[in-house]
Amino acid sequence: MTTRLPPSLDTLERLKTVVGPSGYSQDPTEIAPYLCEWRERYQGATPLLLKPNTTQAVSRIVSICNETRTAIVPQGGNTGLVGGQIPSANNTEVLLSLRRLNSVRSVDIAANVMTVEAGCVLSTIQKTADSNQRLFPLSLASEGSATIGGLISTNAGGTGVLAYGNTREMILGLEVVLPNGQIWNGLRALRKDNTGYDLKQLLIGAEGTLGVVTAGVLKLFPQPRSIETAFVAVPSVQHAIELLHFFQRSSASVTAFELIPRIGLDFVLKHIPGTRSPLAKQYDWCVLVDVSVFGNAEPGHVTTTLTAAAANHLILDGAISNSVAQRNAFWRLRDSLSEAQKPEGGSIKHDVSLPISVIPQFLEQASNEVCRHMPGARPVPFGHLGDGNIHFNISQPIDADKTEFLNKQDSVNQIVHDIVHHFHGSISAEHGIGQAKVDEITKYKSETERMAMRAIKQALDPNNIMNPGKVIRV
Amino acid sequence: MTTRLPPSLDTLERLKTVVGPSGYSQDPTEIAPYLCEWRERYQGATPLLLKPNTTQAVSRIVSICNETRTAIVPQGGNTGLVGGQIPSANNTEVLLSLRRLNSVRSVDIAANVMTVEAGCVLSTIQKTADSNQRLFPLSLASEGSATIGGLISTNAGGTGVLAYGNTREMILGLEVVLPNGQIWNGLRALRKDNTGYDLKQLLIGAEGTLGVVTAGVLKLFPQPRSIETAFVAVPSVQHAIELLHFFQRSSASVTAFELIPRIGLDFVLKHIPGTRSPLAKQYDWCVLVDVSVFGNAEPGHVTTTLTAAAANHLILDGAISNSVAQRNAFWRLRDSLSEAQKPEGGSIKHDVSLPISVIPQFLEQASNEVCRHMPGARPVPFGHLGDGNIHFNISQPIDADKTEFLNKQDSVNQIVHDIVHHFHGSISAEHGIGQAKVDEITKYKSETERMAMRAIKQALDPNNIMNPGKVIRV
Repeated sequence: MTTRLPPSLDTLERLKTVVGPSGYSQDPTEIAPYLCEWRERYQGATPLLLKPNTTQAVSRIVSICNETRTAIVPQGGNTGLVGGQIPSANNTEVLLSLRRLNSVRSVDIAANVMTVEAGCVLSTIQKTADSNQRLFPLSLASEGSATIGGLISTNAGGTGVLAYGNTREMILGLEVVLPNGQIWNGLRALRKDNTGYDLKQLLIGAEGTLGVVTAGVLKLFPQPRSIETAFVAVPSVQHAIELLHFFQRSSASVTAFELIPRIGLDFVLKHIPGTRSPLAKQYDWCVLVDVSVFGNAEPGHVTTTLTAAAANHLILDGAISNSVAQRNAFWRLRDSLSEAQKPEGGSIKHDVSLPISVIPQFLEQASNEVCRHMPGARPVPFGHLGDGNIHFNISQPIDADKTEFLNKQDSVNQIVHDIVHHFHGSISAEHGIGQAKVDEITKYKSETERMAMRAIKQALDPNNIMNPGKVIRV
Repeated sequence: MTTRLPPSLDTLERLKTVVGPSGYSQDPTEIAPYLCEWRERYQGATPLLLKPNTTQAVSRIVSICNETRTAIVPQGGNTGLVGGQIPSANNTEVLLSLRRLNSVRSVDIAANVMTVEAGCVLSTIQKTADSNQRLFPLSLASEGSATIGGLISTNAGGTGVLAYGNTREMILGLEVVLPNGQIWNGLRALRKDNTGYDLKQLLIGAEGTLGVVTAGVLKLFPQPRSIETAFVAVPSVQHAIELLHFFQRSSASVTAFELIPRIGLDFVLKHIPGTRSPLAKQYDWCVLVDVSVFGNAEPGHVTTTLTAAAANHLILDGAISNSVAQRNAFWRLRDSLSEAQKPEGGSIKHDVSLPISVIPQFLEQASNEVCRHMPGARPVPFGHLGDGNIHFNISQPIDADKTEFLNKQDSVNQIVHDIVHHFHGSISAEHGIGQAKVDEITKYKSETERMAMRAIKQALDPNNIMNPGKVIRV
C-alpha cells in the first residue's frame, strides 16, 4: 500500500463541474451523517461528497478519479454493518452517494422483472412490486433506508433467503460503471444466458471494489395469498433441523425458519414491553416458521404439517397464529432478540454460517469454549437456521464489567471463528467484509483464493481507486 | 495471438510421469473419439491424452503446462455442442480428460448436499441422490454421458431450469485447479457466505478457460411424490405465456413448460413411429406442462388449474396424463421435435433466449424475416418457453436442395441473432460459446464487456494455457 495524497483542488473542481451545484457538498454539517455508520463503529472523512443523479455523471466522475488516481467510496443508504461504505479517516477519498440516482426505470409484469437505479430504497421497490401484484422478496430490518445498489454490492441476505435466495439470486442484470469509467450495460432480463463470463456475479457482493453498480434488473415473484406462522417448541436444535426438513418435504412453501433460544426469549419477555410467550411452558429451543400459501392452495398447511411432526415426536408444543396481529406478535419476539440483549450489558456478536448438519455440534462446542474462556458468559445464538446462518451473540456475565467484557471481543471472535472455520463455515454469512474483517479474513481464506481475488481486483481496477482497503488489500 | 509450438518431448515425458502408464494415451485409435464431437462439426488433434484420477495429478499437470506454456483443453463427457471441449487441429494442445476423476466424495443428507468429482456422470449423480431420497434436478438429453465438471463449466440448462435454475443455481462450492496449477479448495456447503468475490461464479460457465473444475458441492432437493403432466392447446403464444403465469400464481409447482408448434407436432406424428396426438383436433400452438406434487399435497393441481384457465379463455383443449406411460408418451412428442425435423431435410438451428414478454413479437418478426430471405423456409420454434429459451430451428423449403439451404446458415444466423439482439436477448441461452460463437459474439457483446472478460482471463491465466481460443480471444 502506498500513501495516497488528497485530491488536488483542480480535481475537486472538475468533479464538482460534472454534477453542478446541487450535486455535491463540502458542508461539514451536511456531510457528517454520511461519514459515520449507525452503530458508530467507523468514522471517516472526505474532501467532497458527490451526489450524481445519472449514470453518465457517475461515469464521468469515475473517469476523472481514475485519471487522477483519486479514491472513491460508493455509498447507498449507509446501513452496512462492516464499514464498507465509510471512507478512511485520512480525508483523501471522495464519497459517492448514489441516493439521488433513484428512478424505477421500468416494470415488466409479463416478464416478471423490474429495472431500478442504484439509489432506490428497498421498501419503495417492495411497494412498487406490490402495486403490480408481484413480490420482491428481499427483506431486512433496514429496508426503509437500504438502497438496492448497496444491497446488490453486499449480496444482502435477510429473512427471505430460505425460499428466495440471497440478493444474488434475485438479480438478472446490472448496469455498472467500471473503474476505468466505462459504463457496462448488462441490464439483461434473461433467465438463461451462456455467452461468456458472468460478470454481474463478480460485481454482486464486491462491496464497490470493482465498480459502481448504477442499476439492476430484479426478478419479481408471485405474491402469496397469505402467510401462516407458527411458534413451535422443539426438544433440541437437531430436532429443529429435522422439523425443517419435515416441512420442506411436505407441500409447504417454507419462507422463514428462525431459531430462538430460551435465554433470548427470556430477555425479550423481560425487557420488551407488551410481549408474552405464545406457549404455556418454557422450552430450551423454539422456532418461528412462516409458510406462504399461493393461489388456489388450501390453507392449513402449518396445522397439518405440525400435527404430523408431533406424531413423529419432532415438537414439544406449538402455537399457530390465527390473525395478522398474532403473527406480528410472534415475529416481534424474534425481531426483538438483539435489542433485548442490550439491558443485559455488553454483547459480542458473530454473523456466521455453517452446513446446517453441523450446527448442533457447532453450538455446543462454541458455547463450551466461550464459557471456558469467560466463565459466566451467556451465549444467545439465534437466527436463520434454515439458511445455516446463526447470529452467535454472547451476553456478558451477570454483574461483570461491560468494558472489560467488550475488551475480550477479539479473543472471543477468534475462538468462535476458529470453530466456524474448523466446521468449514463462513465468518461473514450476510454482512460482508468491508473494513471490519479485511484483516481477519486473511486467517481463514487460503492464500490461493486471496491471490485470485487480488488478481481480479488489479485487472479491473489497476489504479486501486474503487473503495480501496475494503474486502481485499492489494 | 501468437503461434504456439507443439509441446517438447521433454514436456510430454514429464506429463506422462505425473499420471503413470495407465493415465495417458498416445494411441490414435484410443484418442480418436475424444477429438470429434458427436455432431462431427469439430475435429481436433492432440499430441497427448491425459487421464488423471486425482486432483493432485491435475494440479501437477497444469503446473507443468503453465511452466512450459503448453495449452490444455479440459474435457468431460464430450457432449458439448459448441466445440469447447475439442482441441485445435494444429496438434499443439494437450487434452485433459476428467472422466477418471469420478468419485462421489460424500453425501450429507441432513445438509442436503453432495460432493462429487468432475468426472461423475450426471445420471450417476441423479441415481445417487435418488437412493438417498433426494432430487438432483439437473436433467438433459445427454445425461447418460455428460459429466458434472463439464456441466458446471458450461452452466448447463436442460429441462429443470424453470423450477430449479441453471447449473449455477445448484452449485454451493467448487474445487478448482487454477491456471498456475494451484488447487483452490472452495468446497463450501454454505447457503450464505459473504467473504469476498464469489470466485466459483466466475468458473461456472467459463468453459475451462479460467481453470479446471475438479469437484463440486451440489445442492440436493426434496423428491416430488409425483408429477402431473398436461398437453394443452392454446390460442396463441401470448396465451401460453399467460397460462404459465396462471400456473405460477396458483399453488402449483410448475417444473416444466414447453412450447410445441403445429408444424413440429405434425413432423413428429408423421415421422416418429408409434406417436399420436393427445388432442382430437389440430391447433397452432400447444404446451407441455409438468407440475410436481410434494409431500402431503392433494393431487389434482393440474386439473384444477386448467379448469380455471379454461374459464379464463386461456386454453382451447387439453389432455392430462393419468399414467406414467401416458406421461412418457406426451414427453416423447416434445423430445422428438428435433429428430422429426431430419426427414424434412436440412435444419438451421438457434439456441436463443429472450425476456419472456417479447417472445410473441420475436417469433413473428424472426419467422417473417427468415421467410422473406428464404421463401418457403419452415420455422419450427419450440422449447423451454418458461425460461424464455426458444430453439428457433428452421426446416428447409419443401423440395429445396439441402446443401444450398445449409449454405445460407451464416446469413440466416445473422438475421435471427440480429433480431434477438434487438430484443435484448442472448444468442446462446444454454450451449455456451466454445469455438462455435467466439467470433460471432464480438458483434453482440460490447467492447466494454469483452475488455473486462479479457482482463479477467489475462489476470488468472497470463500465459493463456487454459482452453485457448474458446469463449474469449486474448
